[in-house]
Amino acid sequence: MRKIHVIGIGAGDPDQLTLQAVKALRSTDVFFILDKGEVKSDLVQLRRDILDAHLPDGKDAKYRLVEARDPERDRAAGGAGYSPAVGDWRSARANIYERLIAEELGEDESGAFLVWGDPSLYDSTLGILEEILDRGAVSFEYDVVPGISSVSALVARHRTGLNRVARPVQITTGRRLAEGFPDGVDDVVVMLDAHQTFQRYADQDIDIYWGAYIGTPDEILASGPLAETAPRIAELREAARDRKGWIMDTYLLRRHPRD
Amino acid sequence: MRKIHVIGIGAGDPDQLTLQAVKALRSTDVFFILDKGEVKSDLVQLRRDILDAHLPDGKDAKYRLVEARDPERDRAAGGAGYSPAVGDWRSARANIYERLIAEELGEDESGAFLVWGDPSLYDSTLGILEEILDRGAVSFEYDVVPGISSVSALVARHRTGLNRVARPVQITTGRRLAEGFPDGVDDVVVMLDAHQTFQRYADQDIDIYWGAYIGTPDEILASGPLAETAPRIAELREAARDRKGWIMDTYLLRRHPRD
Repeated sequence: MRKIHVIGIGAGDPDQLTLQAVKALRSTDVFFILDKGEVKSDLVQLRRDILDAHLPDGKDAKYRLVEARDPERDRAAGGAGYSPAVGDWRSARANIYERLIAEELGEDESGAFLVWGDPSLYDSTLGILEEILDRGAVSFEYDVVPGISSVSALVARHRTGLNRVARPVQITTGRRLAEGFPDGVDDVVVMLDAHQTFQRYADQDIDIYWGAYIGTPDEILASGPLAETAPRIAELREAARDRKGWIMDTYLLRRHPRD
Repeated sequence: MRKIHVIGIGAGDPDQLTLQAVKALRSTDVFFILDKGEVKSDLVQLRRDILDAHLPDGKDAKYRLVEARDPERDRAAGGAGYSPAVGDWRSARANIYERLIAEELGEDESGAFLVWGDPSLYDSTLGILEEILDRGAVSFEYDVVPGISSVSALVARHRTGLNRVARPVQITTGRRLAEGFPDGVDDVVVMLDAHQTFQRYADQDIDIYWGAYIGTPDEILASGPLAETAPRIAELREAARDRKGWIMDTYLLRRHPRD
């Protein structure tokens, strides 16, 4: 039976892999690497660096790398169309993964997908594998190796907690935050925000803890009262995007009680 | 200057430490271990096992273990009294930590607090260290090493995501869940629930993903529609508590849209 590991590889620092992840890497015959396109080729390189750091290479290398191009996601389909567009994109991705597993992974081999952060947060890999299994054309077992999420890495760098004592925290997307500050919580982590949605709340008594490229040599951190920190983050973000061509950032908003 | 590492050591599996955590352990001179009392002495042993797994011992051991008794927390002070009771308890704990750091850690030494899961989730260590620094009697630098939270470990074992596509997830406490299902989210992770609060929602179309002692040899998992799974979890929980004298569990509730 084919085996597949879905391995969380942390937010960017190769030392943020767990020992369990390293063991899973070392038991893998075939790594499936999906390239999201030119601007994100840094990320492909970072994944290769992680493999190089933890696996023997050169003639001692016993693994194969299989690379493929991720399907383009229709980001133009905004608003209510978000979920269906994601669904189409996921099916397109499932087609590619299914073909890779069927053609590149031997019946007794182990394959692995390397997922940034933790596979449980805003990652499609588990859903895609379930979709492939539902189709029934290829069969395999799989397991999930949890990783340090960019969320955990972010707050560790800021030396703060996700929640305050006895209170809840919500993890959400930039798109959701644009619809309003979530009900019933004052601590909100925002991921996948391409539009600096935090700026909409700069008139409220909120602290922000922001980070980009967390755990990598390019890491940038900023924190403070939102009103004064938001413009600084906007500048840092723009400069970093110009320099690198892409950005991955996350932030925590911590709202203070109204007096 | 004294240095302190606050190290997330994962949910119980020694392989769930990160390489960064292992490096931090190995650069530590003094480990501060707080015992919560007899019933949780298993947890102290588990921490020692983790040290044994990753550090040289016997005559090669270069570290010291300093153990102390955690102050009793006034759990009787329920309801609105929760936060103040936590505050008092935290100050009592800060007194102990302050004394330990002042008396047991040399000026050029590194100390470490080992935190289950991730220090950012429902853990008081960071707040306590800030309180000690605010008091000003002892000074030190500190850093935070993120860990695999019981939340990440739970959903990895269940091979599911924390969030559904493009949707938020909330992490909250049993006490909060008892006040009502949180607004605006259908995916809710519940921690610190001594009262099986999930039972209140068994009449709704909700799936539960539950786990206890995750990552340890005693791990127990259960999942399924809440109505039929809740009674089974209640039995598993009671039997495990009788057997071990304590339980640490976490769960994800996933509500389905109303038709």
